[in-house]
Amino acid sequence: MSRGTDQVEGRRAVRELLKARRRRVRTVWIAGRDLDDVEDLARDVGAKVHRVAPEEIDRRAHTEAPQGVLAAAEPLPEADLDRLLADRRAFLVALDGVTDPQNLGAVARTAESAGATGLVLPRHRAARITPTVTKAAAGALEHLPVATVAGVPAALERARRADVWTVGLDADGGTDLFELALADQPLMIVLGAEGRGLSRLSRERCDVRARIPMHGAIESLNVSAAAALACYEVARRRG
Amino acid sequence: MSRGTDQVEGRRAVRELLKARRRRVRTVWIAGRDLDDVEDLARDVGAKVHRVAPEEIDRRAHTEAPQGVLAAAEPLPEADLDRLLADRRAFLVALDGVTDPQNLGAVARTAESAGATGLVLPRHRAARITPTVTKAAAGALEHLPVATVAGVPAALERARRADVWTVGLDADGGTDLFELALADQPLMIVLGAEGRGLSRLSRERCDVRARIPMHGAIESLNVSAAAALACYEVARRRG
Repeated sequence: MSRGTDQVEGRRAVRELLKARRRRVRTVWIAGRDLDDVEDLARDVGAKVHRVAPEEIDRRAHTEAPQGVLAAAEPLPEADLDRLLADRRAFLVALDGVTDPQNLGAVARTAESAGATGLVLPRHRAARITPTVTKAAAGALEHLPVATVAGVPAALERARRADVWTVGLDADGGTDLFELALADQPLMIVLGAEGRGLSRLSRERCDVRARIPMHGAIESLNVSAAAALACYEVARRRG
Repeated sequence: MSRGTDQVEGRRAVRELLKARRRRVRTVWIAGRDLDDVEDLARDVGAKVHRVAPEEIDRRAHTEAPQGVLAAAEPLPEADLDRLLADRRAFLVALDGVTDPQNLGAVARTAESAGATGLVLPRHRAARITPTVTKAAAGALEHLPVATVAGVPAALERARRADVWTVGLDADGGTDLFELALADQPLMIVLGAEGRGLSRLSRERCDVRARIPMHGAIESLNVSAAAALACYEVARRRG
């Protein structure tokens, strides 16, 4: 099933698309003199290169600031959740109802940087992987496998059966994120939508609910900041 | 000097504006039935309340999604850097050339949540505190003091004289952020612009340059993710 991801925009995203070689790139449009390295990468993978005026880039772009470069590529390959769960070093990040594309892209970028082994996204009521997402991910989606699932609660059940610990981030969680002693086990971090948090069913099915301590006056972090803290806590403990 | 911050937009930002009572709120415009608590808060502080149509909110708004509520308030008070530096628990965050308003707001939100005692912003070549910034900060700027300075390098010099450690985040830094043993001292974290990083002079003047370990294929984190990790590393060590 295509998730409609065939256009990639922005310098980091297009560079990583071309370097990763995980999907075929058909065409790259370039406007800007400082993009010779992108042109070389594009020719190396056999893509057609069109040097065009900046207006042509803007006309074709789906994002606000394509930074002078777009690529048409095959859709991202679809990862298999059970295969991701079977990895003894599994370090998955599931998003439960995150609808903002900037947040989805930011979470993917940080998760990949922290060494996550996959991203789990529900098929419905969630941000889809659009050019805005791949641009905000700054190339991370070329490297991080993405499994699409019917729903996060069902994915949590599959994680349980695969002996993968599930850790939901929750403002009312009983465990301090920074005291979590699970990081060496295969695990899945579950992040809820901003405002509403985890769905009731996801909250119930997580093995552990962890809270991020709040030291100021405001009540909650943005989901991408919460994801950064959770993913790097795993990375830090895995050392 | 006014920094032009008299309109506050979005539910979290307006609620915190009204709860913090740090600046006078003249008028609040509300569209939406589920905002009675905001109306009550506004009346408590003596603001005029206008119940209006959603179109009226959108017409007045400077941000894309004002969520049915705007407020006209006095500009944010200006904090004094030397006073912030004199705090024995000083935990400051300086932004060196961050121009994206979403990033500035996101950093403010995370810094406040981690217990930071102030934000340091250069007057020029940096994002100003606009309604987009206060909205992204989700109310944090009502609580977190902000000092505006002529330039970050000069602020670093003032920090040195005040015996405040300065820690620059830098991809080429010699110290792993998670091995930094400074958190109990008064300190200032310095974050550079995405892409370019710290300016040469800021880099030279920081006492320590710390890097965030990258465990995947992509090269860098977004500045707001980097800020989250650095601020919470301080919070974690201060316990």
